[in-house]
Amino acid sequence: MKDSAVLLITCPDQKGLVAAVSNELYRFGANIIHADQHRDHDEGLFFMRVEWSLGAQEQAFDLQAFSEAFAPLARQYNMDSQLHVSEIRPRVALFVSQHLHCLADLLHRHQMGELECEIPLIISNHADGEPLAKFYGIPFHHVPLTAANKAEGEAKQFALLETADVELVVLARYMQILSPEFVRRYPGGVINVHHSFLPAFIGARPYHAAYKRGVKLIGATSHYVTEELDDGPIIEQDVARISHRDQVEDLIAKGRDLERVVLSRAVRWHLDRRILRYGNKTVIFD
Amino acid sequence: MKDSAVLLITCPDQKGLVAAVSNELYRFGANIIHADQHRDHDEGLFFMRVEWSLGAQEQAFDLQAFSEAFAPLARQYNMDSQLHVSEIRPRVALFVSQHLHCLADLLHRHQMGELECEIPLIISNHADGEPLAKFYGIPFHHVPLTAANKAEGEAKQFALLETADVELVVLARYMQILSPEFVRRYPGGVINVHHSFLPAFIGARPYHAAYKRGVKLIGATSHYVTEELDDGPIIEQDVARISHRDQVEDLIAKGRDLERVVLSRAVRWHLDRRILRYGNKTVIFD
Amino acid sequence: MKDSAVLLITCPDQKGLVAAVSNELYRFGANIIHADQHRDHDEGLFFMRVEWSLGAQEQAFDLQAFSEAFAPLARQYNMDSQLHVSEIRPRVALFVSQHLHCLADLLHRHQMGELECEIPLIISNHADGEPLAKFYGIPFHHVPLTAANKAEGEAKQFALLETADVELVVLARYMQILSPEFVRRYPGGVINVHHSFLPAFIGARPYHAAYKRGVKLIGATSHYVTEELDDGPIIEQDVARISHRDQVEDLIAKGRDLERVVLSRAVRWHLDRRILRYGNKTVIFD
Amino acid sequence: MKDSAVLLITCPDQKGLVAAVSNELYRFGANIIHADQHRDHDEGLFFMRVEWSLGAQEQAFDLQAFSEAFAPLARQYNMDSQLHVSEIRPRVALFVSQHLHCLADLLHRHQMGELECEIPLIISNHADGEPLAKFYGIPFHHVPLTAANKAEGEAKQFALLETADVELVVLARYMQILSPEFVRRYPGGVINVHHSFLPAFIGARPYHAAYKRGVKLIGATSHYVTEELDDGPIIEQDVARISHRDQVEDLIAKGRDLERVVLSRAVRWHLDRRILRYGNKTVIFD
Repeated sequence: MKDSAVLLITCPDQKGLVAAVSNELYRFGANIIHADQHRDHDEGLFFMRVEWSLGAQEQAFDLQAFSEAFAPLARQYNMDSQLHVSEIRPRVALFVSQHLHCLADLLHRHQMGELECEIPLIISNHADGEPLAKFYGIPFHHVPLTAANKAEGEAKQFALLETADVELVVLARYMQILSPEFVRRYPGGVINVHHSFLPAFIGARPYHAAYKRGVKLIGATSHYVTEELDDGPIIEQDVARISHRDQVEDLIAKGRDLERVVLSRAVRWHLDRRILRYGNKTVIFD
Repeated sequence: MKDSAVLLITCPDQKGLVAAVSNELYRFGANIIHADQHRDHDEGLFFMRVEWSLGAQEQAFDLQAFSEAFAPLARQYNMDSQLHVSEIRPRVALFVSQHLHCLADLLHRHQMGELECEIPLIISNHADGEPLAKFYGIPFHHVPLTAANKAEGEAKQFALLETADVELVVLARYMQILSPEFVRRYPGGVINVHHSFLPAFIGARPYHAAYKRGVKLIGATSHYVTEELDDGPIIEQDVARISHRDQVEDLIAKGRDLERVVLSRAVRWHLDRRILRYGNKTVIFD
Repeated sequence: MKDSAVLLITCPDQKGLVAAVSNELYRFGANIIHADQHRDHDEGLFFMRVEWSLGAQEQAFDLQAFSEAFAPLARQYNMDSQLHVSEIRPRVALFVSQHLHCLADLLHRHQMGELECEIPLIISNHADGEPLAKFYGIPFHHVPLTAANKAEGEAKQFALLETADVELVVLARYMQILSPEFVRRYPGGVINVHHSFLPAFIGARPYHAAYKRGVKLIGATSHYVTEELDDGPIIEQDVARISHRDQVEDLIAKGRDLERVVLSRAVRWHLDRRILRYGNKTVIFD
Repeated sequence: MKDSAVLLITCPDQKGLVAAVSNELYRFGANIIHADQHRDHDEGLFFMRVEWSLGAQEQAFDLQAFSEAFAPLARQYNMDSQLHVSEIRPRVALFVSQHLHCLADLLHRHQMGELECEIPLIISNHADGEPLAKFYGIPFHHVPLTAANKAEGEAKQFALLETADVELVVLARYMQILSPEFVRRYPGGVINVHHSFLPAFIGARPYHAAYKRGVKLIGATSHYVTEELDDGPIIEQDVARISHRDQVEDLIAKGRDLERVVLSRAVRWHLDRRILRYGNKTVIFD
């Protein structure tokens, strides 16, 4: 949505939260486009997303004043809150290895305007993605990684990411495991796609494992990366039907379509500020 | 949800609506379980559903006082509002002809506690459903209908429905077209299942039509009944994959499973006060 | 299909198999309704299913003669083959505990003619299913099972199954683990429904585990029972979408619909002789 | 499959067909990879697809000799048959207008080896697709079309298609209606994607129509083009769930993903010689 602001709130649940936030927005004349709340009764948590129009210049919403007025409210209710404006587009780095289908899909969607972000760079441990990057006019950095030079390689990646002022890292079939330090540097800011219906088939070669087990549906999962492999908060999952006629190659081919879909949805929802993480779960506001 | 109240609101959209409603609920100490809003920007309409706990006796929410205090607010904002309490369970009549799968499904779900309603009667133009009705202990009324006695038959139905104080009529594969008068008597209160993916294959024998057209998916649709056949607001739809191997009988068999699912969801959502109708559409709060 | 025969073949793959079988059927004048083959190239196996009409009396297919003529062919090609005729309906025992939704579904489908079998008995370790059994006119046997009397209880079950001449045992949410002896007695003849998308969430309380993991889809799986828990050949799987709004109870309710669907499909396909097991997998002829 | 042949047969059903074809293949030593048959009992038609390996040079299958030997058989059984070899890759023209998502998807899949064909040219009534065509190294022809110059424009298209020796035309969101002459020139050789769940929402702006009707699922359909608009044999369909929150733009965005999937499947199946048309329907061998 053009020229809008999004407020995301997580806090302990208590009476009057919606009233308090709504009143403050009303006081500043917010023209609310979309609002949604969720309560997790087990955890006693309250989640809220509000999006409102910032309006034309003469009647513009005073974001600075609202922000200042909102601060004591946030403290009072012990809120963890984020305020985003559409004008400031997140800066996203795409990581890829040799399978390029997710990269091609994200770049095409970005070009079509489906993804509200800047993509200042692509980083890969292989050279295969370079022509695609070039076509879409995005700088491509080949940073080879081996067991021996992993720390050095990551240091290069960190430097590139910092220079490019990146907020979100998207692993578009990047087949290297990130170090714990990498994950700690981007808390809540690394999205991965795993080519199975997690938690089934964790780890390497999930399509081979699925074929061996004789499942009738295969899946793909997009999730935030945490220090524990394939165990981060799940953002989106989807499945496709297979039969005894499908060989491993068919699973891989059908899986590519799933991977594209679940990864691109996750990235879009993140960029649209629709996701709130808590514990090992996600709230996805629709 | 046990001992809860639901407030449903439809009104012209304007600033401050959420704040106004939230404040009123907060003032009366409502312990909100679930709240959701929607804005239709094209129509300039605002929709809201709030559910809150009515609490134990000594600290009970004062519904009467709230209701009185809310009335001027509703007038001020030109609201169309409904207030429901879980204690008063809707009274539902099931209509059926000879295909009993939807009836069997609804009765089983009702017995299991999935449907929060009373079912004081079943009405049919055939005798086939009687054993099922008996098993579940629900009075069964056989009201034969012919072209000749249609008005008379409906008069009997009206009498039965009024005596039973019915709020919602569910057509569980009832193969007679209701008269305009019937529809007018239960505005927003007749749910039907159509055995196609509407608006495809309107009218009779949709599975035969789907087979003839060579579609690759078949569907079923639950909707509110309006005076125009198969054209009321859609509540839920689902589809199943078919192939060239499927004959009309297979479509009918696969379709039965779809019909059960889309009809039972529609009935449950209606009973849970999750549906708001507007124009020829529905808002389904999840 | 009324008055038809089905031939199921598994054998090492080699040239001329389809020709050999087709010729033999042609020689006896078989009117083929449906034929399908599959080759597993990794395992070097060939699978075939042929169904043909047995015809009216005067021109009836001579099954006895065909069977005798086919025997040397089967030996020559080292075939594992089964010949079934629709006239002889499989005898099926339903096992259930306290969750009755799968039982109710199977009994309703049986009554409607969707399942081509006899159901001579229902066995349960609880009494809850008795009214349903009674309604559908099927003998119900309450065989309580405790850790202490398990062997004794199973002995009772074996006696009942033998008396009833049962070929297939369907565990319709039967919450007891069968002994290895039970499984050995019915090789390829026990179908279970597991309330998760196997191999995710093996074991007890899978919906609770799925809720805890924060998955976005839940599933159910029907499979043949082997001595290793939840590890037998998968027959069918399906999934349903859930969101952060769904509590464990919602997962359980949505899961019930999946369980009904995947179990009833598995039973129907088994009865229609559409399934061939090999290793830990299934071929499902459609 | 590398170095294989596919035989597709449609003929009046009669006894002995599978035996006759299998014997002939066996006589020539065919190493069958995949075989499938279908009978349409209503129409009395038999359909068959056989794929076999052509083998290494010294033991190569003698296609010429088989073809000659098969001819009298085909006449005897009144077969409509096609013999394809993998070595001769079909030549495909892609037509596109301004929406490039299907084009981008097909070109990417082609580059990855998912589509077994040559793409000698892309034809468009707009210039938008040119950069994509260039990136993938495929000649792009801008042939503007207006009501006034339609015949002239099509004449240019015919010349381009003939020069390029094209067998299959794929309309990848080409927003012009082909003339009857065009359709007659490529009988069975024009695949289109329609952005609705046909036969619902035939004609222009189907997403707007779907939004207006308030459906809960949207769909897309790939089909062979016939002289009657949107009425040709359906190849594939798929759907996506929408809610009251989705605006027309959201339907269009979700629909793009469906269009890519159903169109690419249709093209792949056609190229893999998996589709048999009959009347207004398709048999899709899997």
